[in-house]
Amino acid sequence: MTNLKPLLHTVLSPALLDLYEIKDCVVVIIDVLRATSTIATALYNGATAVIPVDDIARCISISNAIGGITAGERDGRIAEGLQYGNSPFEYPREFINGKTLVLTTTNGTKLLHMALARGASHIITGSFPNFSAVCGYLVAQNKPVILGCAAWKGKVNIEDTLFAGAVIARIKNHFSIQCDSSNMAETLYETAKMDLYGFLKNRNATHFRRLTNFGMEKDLRYCLTPDLANVIPFYENECLVLQRGR
Amino acid sequence: MTNLKPLLHTVLSPALLDLYEIKDCVVVIIDVLRATSTIATALYNGATAVIPVDDIARCISISNAIGGITAGERDGRIAEGLQYGNSPFEYPREFINGKTLVLTTTNGTKLLHMALARGASHIITGSFPNFSAVCGYLVAQNKPVILGCAAWKGKVNIEDTLFAGAVIARIKNHFSIQCDSSNMAETLYETAKMDLYGFLKNRNATHFRRLTNFGMEKDLRYCLTPDLANVIPFYENECLVLQRGR
Repeated sequence: MTNLKPLLHTVLSPALLDLYEIKDCVVVIIDVLRATSTIATALYNGATAVIPVDDIARCISISNAIGGITAGERDGRIAEGLQYGNSPFEYPREFINGKTLVLTTTNGTKLLHMALARGASHIITGSFPNFSAVCGYLVAQNKPVILGCAAWKGKVNIEDTLFAGAVIARIKNHFSIQCDSSNMAETLYETAKMDLYGFLKNRNATHFRRLTNFGMEKDLRYCLTPDLANVIPFYENECLVLQRGR
Repeated sequence: MTNLKPLLHTVLSPALLDLYEIKDCVVVIIDVLRATSTIATALYNGATAVIPVDDIARCISISNAIGGITAGERDGRIAEGLQYGNSPFEYPREFINGKTLVLTTTNGTKLLHMALARGASHIITGSFPNFSAVCGYLVAQNKPVILGCAAWKGKVNIEDTLFAGAVIARIKNHFSIQCDSSNMAETLYETAKMDLYGFLKNRNATHFRRLTNFGMEKDLRYCLTPDLANVIPFYENECLVLQRGR
């Protein structure tokens, strides 16, 4: 028996995933604005499952087959043919409890499928609303971790990097971190943590700006607030479900 | 005539270059520890040219053909078959003046060839030793800029990102920056700028650690000091030469 700590790496974009050993890792899919925040929220509020899909046609066909709720946006508006959007506020308990949400998300779903194909041991989703649950899970697993930022069409984004940095700041003593991306993410988070919203605004974060242009300040503030929906969305059989007793 | 400022983007790894429009851009190849620092130094000290190559056999054959000096390291030691290493201190004026250096560098050369293939307008190399020269050149060109970090085998590194951040902090008012990587790089630099050496050390930067293990503190401090070799290495005809009158 050794007392070596498991490795933790941060992958700043799906386009960099091939550079990392994924097999037998716990992979955290991070898509802060807003997919993984909304996934945590829907499950926290009683959704039976969230099925992440990468396009609208597939969203509709799966939903028809299982009697689910279709959701997704294009350019900040509910996509044609779907019922709901990407906002966590669309999924309160009185609406989503007991239902299955079929959610189109391009960046996060792509990364999730890549991690699966590369042999990840477990895949969960992370966001500020389920921050402490994710941190607790990673420490308890005692396995190597990949913090996978969904990014934006492959380009590194600030908000996903900030979340990776927040996780690292919380759990770094439990892991061996020999990863510049992780150290950069943590530095960024330490700089920003007193006011994440103000930091993204002042730093002119590109996706933050896209969303504020649509008047989504309430969503943005929610998606940057820790622990409002502290569950662990766990990917199995193409669904994200609450992990129980693993 | 418009007064739109040219765009500036930071590409944190060669593995991300395909996501960016390169055509007609000025591309700055950044490989702080130590390739681009050594290139600036050799040219500043009178080298006729520096020829960057990606492997040792090619280094030797080119050098034999032109009567050059072979240089390159593997695992921190002069590579077998080559004459000199990667340290800027190996290339003082009394040695390198009037000579051509054939330098093996994997990360930077790869990025340089990619940028060339993608139609970059001009390619130069950047490092702290030629910091102000690079900044002045970019402002004077008034063209779109790609700050291209050579990274380490594709993985993002702190020191190249810091240099990109330093450039952005200096010249951002001359450019339109809608790029999270650039904003992250600038934030990192602002956090680190009072003591770049201490920052890399405290943040356990991976390549910094590799080099300190070989006792290269003097090299590291030099490579983090601005403006000790303020020239612009300009890539043309497979050589880096001092740019004159363009």
